[in-house]
Amino acid sequence: MHDKARIGFVGLGSMGLPMARNLVAAGHEVAGHDIRPTPMAALCAAGGQAAATACDAARDAGILILMVVDAAQAREVLIAQGAARALLPGGIVALMSTCLADEVAALGREVAATGRVLVDAPVSGGVVGAEAGTLSIMAAGDADALARLGPVLEVLGARTFVVGAEPGQGAVAKAVNQLLCGVHIAAAAEALALAGKLGLDTGVMLEIVSGSAAASWMIRDRGPRMIREPGAVTSTVDIFVKDLGIVAETGRDARAPLPVAAAALQMFLAAASAGDGALDDSQVIRAYRRLMGAS
Amino acid sequence: MHDKARIGFVGLGSMGLPMARNLVAAGHEVAGHDIRPTPMAALCAAGGQAAATACDAARDAGILILMVVDAAQAREVLIAQGAARALLPGGIVALMSTCLADEVAALGREVAATGRVLVDAPVSGGVVGAEAGTLSIMAAGDADALARLGPVLEVLGARTFVVGAEPGQGAVAKAVNQLLCGVHIAAAAEALALAGKLGLDTGVMLEIVSGSAAASWMIRDRGPRMIREPGAVTSTVDIFVKDLGIVAETGRDARAPLPVAAAALQMFLAAASAGDGALDDSQVIRAYRRLMGAS
Repeated sequence: MHDKARIGFVGLGSMGLPMARNLVAAGHEVAGHDIRPTPMAALCAAGGQAAATACDAARDAGILILMVVDAAQAREVLIAQGAARALLPGGIVALMSTCLADEVAALGREVAATGRVLVDAPVSGGVVGAEAGTLSIMAAGDADALARLGPVLEVLGARTFVVGAEPGQGAVAKAVNQLLCGVHIAAAAEALALAGKLGLDTGVMLEIVSGSAAASWMIRDRGPRMIREPGAVTSTVDIFVKDLGIVAETGRDARAPLPVAAAALQMFLAAASAGDGALDDSQVIRAYRRLMGAS
Repeated sequence: MHDKARIGFVGLGSMGLPMARNLVAAGHEVAGHDIRPTPMAALCAAGGQAAATACDAARDAGILILMVVDAAQAREVLIAQGAARALLPGGIVALMSTCLADEVAALGREVAATGRVLVDAPVSGGVVGAEAGTLSIMAAGDADALARLGPVLEVLGARTFVVGAEPGQGAVAKAVNQLLCGVHIAAAAEALALAGKLGLDTGVMLEIVSGSAAASWMIRDRGPRMIREPGAVTSTVDIFVKDLGIVAETGRDARAPLPVAAAALQMFLAAASAGDGALDDSQVIRAYRRLMGAS
C-alpha cells in the first residue's frame, strides 16, 4: 500500500489547508490542489506539493481527501474531472465536507463503479479544530476502508466516531450535529437581543447564562461576539444558511418535521437577506435586532 | 434588625424545602409554611418551625422568602392573606419564583404601599442547585434591601447577579435564561429524534454532540434520559409549558418576536396535549417521535 507514501488533498480552504499541513507534519507525502494559487503556495511552504489539477493530486495516491464546499463540487472533482480514476485501484476517497446524505450516497455508488471506495467522513470543530488536529470525525463506509484510513483520520481529529457502514450516514450525523449548532447560535442571539430590548445589561446576562443550565458551547463562543460590534469572521452566516439548509432537506427527505431548526434557518436567511451573509455567524443577532425594531 | 433571627418562608416544594433547610443549617431561625403538611414536618425535622399560615410565617420576621408557583400565588399570600403586613415594618419580601415581569413589578408596588420592600430574585439551577446551595440568583430591587438580603442569598446560591434596581427585572433575566433552557431541551429532542428516525445509533450520536460545538448543558443532562425509557422526574414538561409561556408573554409585552422559542413552546404544548405534562421534561422527545410518525 502507498497510503503513507502519498495522499491527495483537494480543497485547501480555511479547514482544508491546516488539515493538509497537519498530514505533512505527520510525515505524509501530500499533493494538494485548490482552484486558488495562494493556499497551494502555503502548502508548498509547509513541505507539501502543489498539484496543478485535482487529477494530479489523486494520481498514484492511495487516499484522496476532499474538503470542498459541497457534494456538487466533490462530484465535479471525482467524476467529471476524473480524480477517482486517477487514484490507485482500490484507493479510498475520504469526503470530509458537509454534504447532503443522499448526494453522498449517490456519489459513493459512482466512485464504487470506478473500482475505488468512498468513505463519508464529515467533521465538527471548525478552523480551530482543523489547525489543532482535534476535529470530531463522523465516519461511515466500508469497514476495511475505514480501517485503512484510520491512521490518517487520527492525524486530523481527536476522535473518530463510526456512525454507519454506508456513505451518507456520516452526512446524516453531521446534519444532526449542525441542527444543534445552528439552533444554539440562533437561540443565543434571540435571548441576547431580547435582553437588550428589555434594557438588561447584556454583558451580565451573558455571564449568567454562560454559567447556568442555559449554557451552550455556542453561547460561550459566539455570545461575546454578539454583544460587541461585528469583528473577525471565524465562520459566516452563509455557512449556516447552507448547513441548516442541509438539515431542512435531510428532514424533508425523511419526512421528519423539524420546527425549531426551521425557525432558526429563517433567522439566518433574514441575516443573509439583509446583506450580512459574509459576516461572522454571531451577527445573526443583527437580524434579531431588526426584527425587534432596532435600526 | 431581626434578619438573622427570623426568616419566613412560604412554598416548601421541591425547590423551597431544601432552600429553607439550608437557611436553618446556616443558623437562621426559619418559620416555614406550605399548604401541604408533609414538607412542613420535614422542615421541623431539620430544625425549622412550621407556621400554620403564611401570616404566621411572616410575623415578626425581617425577611419573607416566597418560593410559590407564580405571581398569582405570591399576590394571594402577600396581599389577600396579609403576609406583607405581618412582616416587620421595612421588612423585605424576596420573591424567588419564576414569574412574569409585569406581575412582579405590580406586586412590588403593592408591597411598597404596605411599607415593606419587594425584591425580585428568581433562580436557576433546579433542585440540585437548591439542595447544594449553588443556585444562580438574578436579583433586582432597591440597593439597600439587596444589601440586607445579601447574606441570606449567599446561603441559597453560589452567585447573585444584580440585574436591575426595579422588581421585575430579575424576572426578565430569568425569562431570557429559560428561553435558552427550553429551546436547548427542544433542540436536543429534535436532533435525537431525527437521528433515531434516520437509523443512527442515538447513543453514539449523543456522545458526538456532547463533545462537539453542538454541546449544551441541557443535552448533556437531558440527552441520556431522552434515549432511554421515561424514568425519574426532575422537572416536568408542564414546568416548561409555564416557563416558555412566560417567555412568550414577555416577548409579546415587549413587542419582541421570538420565533425559535415560539417553535420550542409548541413542542412542549404537544407533549402536554398528549398527556405527558407530568413526565420529565426530557420526554418532550416523545412528542417529536409522534410528530415524526413513530407510535
